[in-house]
Amino acid sequence: MSFDLQEAIDVLRRTPATLHALLDDIGERLARCNEGTETFSPFDVVGHLIDGEETDWMPRARIILSDKSDKQFTPYDRFRHRERNANRTLPSLLEEFARLRSANLKELSSWQLTDEQLNLKGTHPTFGDVTLHELLATWVVHDLGHIAQVARVLAKQYRDDVGPWTPFLPVLTDHETPRS
Amino acid sequence: MSFDLQEAIDVLRRTPATLHALLDDIGERLARCNEGTETFSPFDVVGHLIDGEETDWMPRARIILSDKSDKQFTPYDRFRHRERNANRTLPSLLEEFARLRSANLKELSSWQLTDEQLNLKGTHPTFGDVTLHELLATWVVHDLGHIAQVARVLAKQYRDDVGPWTPFLPVLTDHETPRS
Repeated sequence: MSFDLQEAIDVLRRTPATLHALLDDIGERLARCNEGTETFSPFDVVGHLIDGEETDWMPRARIILSDKSDKQFTPYDRFRHRERNANRTLPSLLEEFARLRSANLKELSSWQLTDEQLNLKGTHPTFGDVTLHELLATWVVHDLGHIAQVARVLAKQYRDDVGPWTPFLPVLTDHETPRS
Repeated sequence: MSFDLQEAIDVLRRTPATLHALLDDIGERLARCNEGTETFSPFDVVGHLIDGEETDWMPRARIILSDKSDKQFTPYDRFRHRERNANRTLPSLLEEFARLRSANLKELSSWQLTDEQLNLKGTHPTFGDVTLHELLATWVVHDLGHIAQVARVLAKQYRDDVGPWTPFLPVLTDHETPRS
């Protein structure tokens, strides 16, 4: 296992401030823009990350670390945020995400996980056995993937404005078929 | 022209704080990691953005707005930063980038550009006539593309740690052949 828990926590700690810098008080056009039907806007991404804090990463870590013999994860609802946040603003979601993340990382750090604990397993609904360190590494990659997505979605709103530069700007043609 | 100068300036203003949140005081492993031979690390990206502040966007805007009849841009050196920053640290580059960007946006705002000025043209060394608004929109997209790149490069350092989750994390397999 090459996974470094302290480095992972350091990266996870950065996400709320990164999204705050990119998105707080951004105009409605950019807050609600997307890459096409059924793709996430920046507003959706922050809602989805909040769902992760409340229903995915730490609840699954707690299942892995529990004394119960059944370590089956609850399936994750990728669209929970839609109804939950119907009347919310993006700044209020950013603030809530920062609060939830901070509390989760405080709890995660307090566990002082050993390598033995990081190798404990839970049962993923789709692909079976996964370890705690795989879950935590996935949390990190999931954050970074959604930061990249927000930057890409914002960039694409300028697609018609860049004239002949398009071939020099690969972000404009990444994910022409949605991948996440 | 749908380009909104104030919105573009607002997005450009966010980049130093976004990169500071993602990268300041990050460990050397992540500061210097990349996606393979000849690809940029986060350290390289910040150096490249500094080059843009000093030699690309504003110098080209000044050429477009000048009274000279020759509006030919100086070719841009994508690798100027390598020698320039050989002995620098990432925090010092982040600080320098923030300072240069702030000064450039102050100057850009002070011009109070009209639609007529935004439609003035310069001559790009590769593809000829480009307008000022195309240059400024490209600046915005270029920033966001590099933010997405930094997030993607960081994510890929956890590629071997996520176990069976890889197919659910498209950021890990974006740009398997370098695109920027």
